[in-house]
Amino acid sequence: MQTLCTAAQLRTCLAPVRRAGQSIGLVPTMGCFHQGHLALMREARRQEGVVVVSLFVNPTQFGPQDDLARYPRDPEGDARAAAGVGVDVLFTPSEQEMYGPADSTWVTVTGTLVEGLCGPHRPGHFRGVATVVCKLFGLVQPDRAYFGEKDYQQLQVIRHMTADLKLPIEIVPVPTVREADGLAMSSRNAYLDPQERAAAPILYRALQAARQAVEHRERMGRGIVARASEIIAQEPRLKLQYLELVDADTLAPLPRLDRPGVLAVAAYLGTTRLIDNIRLDPGKKSE
Amino acid sequence: MQTLCTAAQLRTCLAPVRRAGQSIGLVPTMGCFHQGHLALMREARRQEGVVVVSLFVNPTQFGPQDDLARYPRDPEGDARAAAGVGVDVLFTPSEQEMYGPADSTWVTVTGTLVEGLCGPHRPGHFRGVATVVCKLFGLVQPDRAYFGEKDYQQLQVIRHMTADLKLPIEIVPVPTVREADGLAMSSRNAYLDPQERAAAPILYRALQAARQAVEHRERMGRGIVARASEIIAQEPRLKLQYLELVDADTLAPLPRLDRPGVLAVAAYLGTTRLIDNIRLDPGKKSE
Repeated sequence: MQTLCTAAQLRTCLAPVRRAGQSIGLVPTMGCFHQGHLALMREARRQEGVVVVSLFVNPTQFGPQDDLARYPRDPEGDARAAAGVGVDVLFTPSEQEMYGPADSTWVTVTGTLVEGLCGPHRPGHFRGVATVVCKLFGLVQPDRAYFGEKDYQQLQVIRHMTADLKLPIEIVPVPTVREADGLAMSSRNAYLDPQERAAAPILYRALQAARQAVEHRERMGRGIVARASEIIAQEPRLKLQYLELVDADTLAPLPRLDRPGVLAVAAYLGTTRLIDNIRLDPGKKSE
Repeated sequence: MQTLCTAAQLRTCLAPVRRAGQSIGLVPTMGCFHQGHLALMREARRQEGVVVVSLFVNPTQFGPQDDLARYPRDPEGDARAAAGVGVDVLFTPSEQEMYGPADSTWVTVTGTLVEGLCGPHRPGHFRGVATVVCKLFGLVQPDRAYFGEKDYQQLQVIRHMTADLKLPIEIVPVPTVREADGLAMSSRNAYLDPQERAAAPILYRALQAARQAVEHRERMGRGIVARASEIIAQEPRLKLQYLELVDADTLAPLPRLDRPGVLAVAAYLGTTRLIDNIRLDPGKKSE
């Protein structure tokens, strides 16, 4: 595995790969790799000639109240883990490499994709995500890029941005990887103290209860959300931020599950913000 | 010359070009070709294996008060002219082809690049330009793209956008082409009645007078602008919108010509808005 820090090194490294007709897969990350990241890398390894993993804690996607300063970092462990799953290139640019001093360009996604869920709670977050991913796409020019379904709103923002800007890149979604008790893997899980960690799986149990309600023919958004709310209310440590049923494509609110939906939740456990989501399908019974 | 209307046709056409290692040059236009457009195409023809000209009157760069509805169009004449200078592909997409119904992505350039000159007078204009050019870059993936220096602010917005988004595309500036009397070629010149047309060259004469002042060692921005203003004041038909001396790279106001500058002007003749600019260099005498 090569570890590269500059755009120039990366271009020099990838030019012959492209000329040789090998496919390039990109896995954009902020590091501190867990099994969720490794699942993205393994899927890329399965599909691509060359796998590039970028590791960049992108400051523009953190708000002033966010956890940029304490965001977990483990560069040595990350390099070992990436090499262990067969990554070819680990790209670890500096902030100066990604944002020049005269940098003045933003990529923004508007409308329902960012109006709900994390959008109102993290102003500027998706602008930062879309901008840095666009830069990484420009640098790497991958054939495919891999994103986890755990950050579902991010996945949809990137999918729409890529289509809208006519970028010749396929976005590959990879299912959320969970701990044995159902907690979605996240770098931020490292912040949880033992009691918070014990309480955290209730988020996924709540989402599963909602899915059961759908299997029992509940189709009203309010009813589906209420079922999950009941479960979450059982854990006083959890401070709910949002719990919303949205259209799986546009992320517009879904009053009735008459098309594929996603039930998404964000909640605080102490100072740690956790998110999770589950796909809900009306199936044939609802017709 | 092939004329193509869809993104799919364009990709199918360009994939073997790219595989064969031929270079691709893009000339983005809004059509109604004059000698300025043809100079861009000839320069592209000189440098590239394959020359793609896009012809798309981009609605998102026109404001509600702008001339979208009456913008001059001449598709047959354009096709003949492009074929005449050896263009390989004329890409004429529909609005639906460039902006899908769920389109929600904008590319914006911020700061000094858009705070002066046309920026305040055409809100949203450069957002529309940056977005559509980004889409065309995604579709065509050119090695180089050609822009006229006559739209100098647009040129700088595109240059910075391309660098900021790490797009592997070289932006090639092409000098303004002028009529014999100095009027910068523009599709909008067709709007001018005979008296307005006779008055129009004073803009360039004013810019030249400013250059002479610099050659006579004027270095103060105020003095340089005043020299051009005097000339423009001689033509009562001209309604000045702005006349500004700016840094040639950042477009920040330049109180003193201590680095390369651009003197840019916008003025109305009747209902027709004309722009022009001239590069001013302090030279060695000022040091």
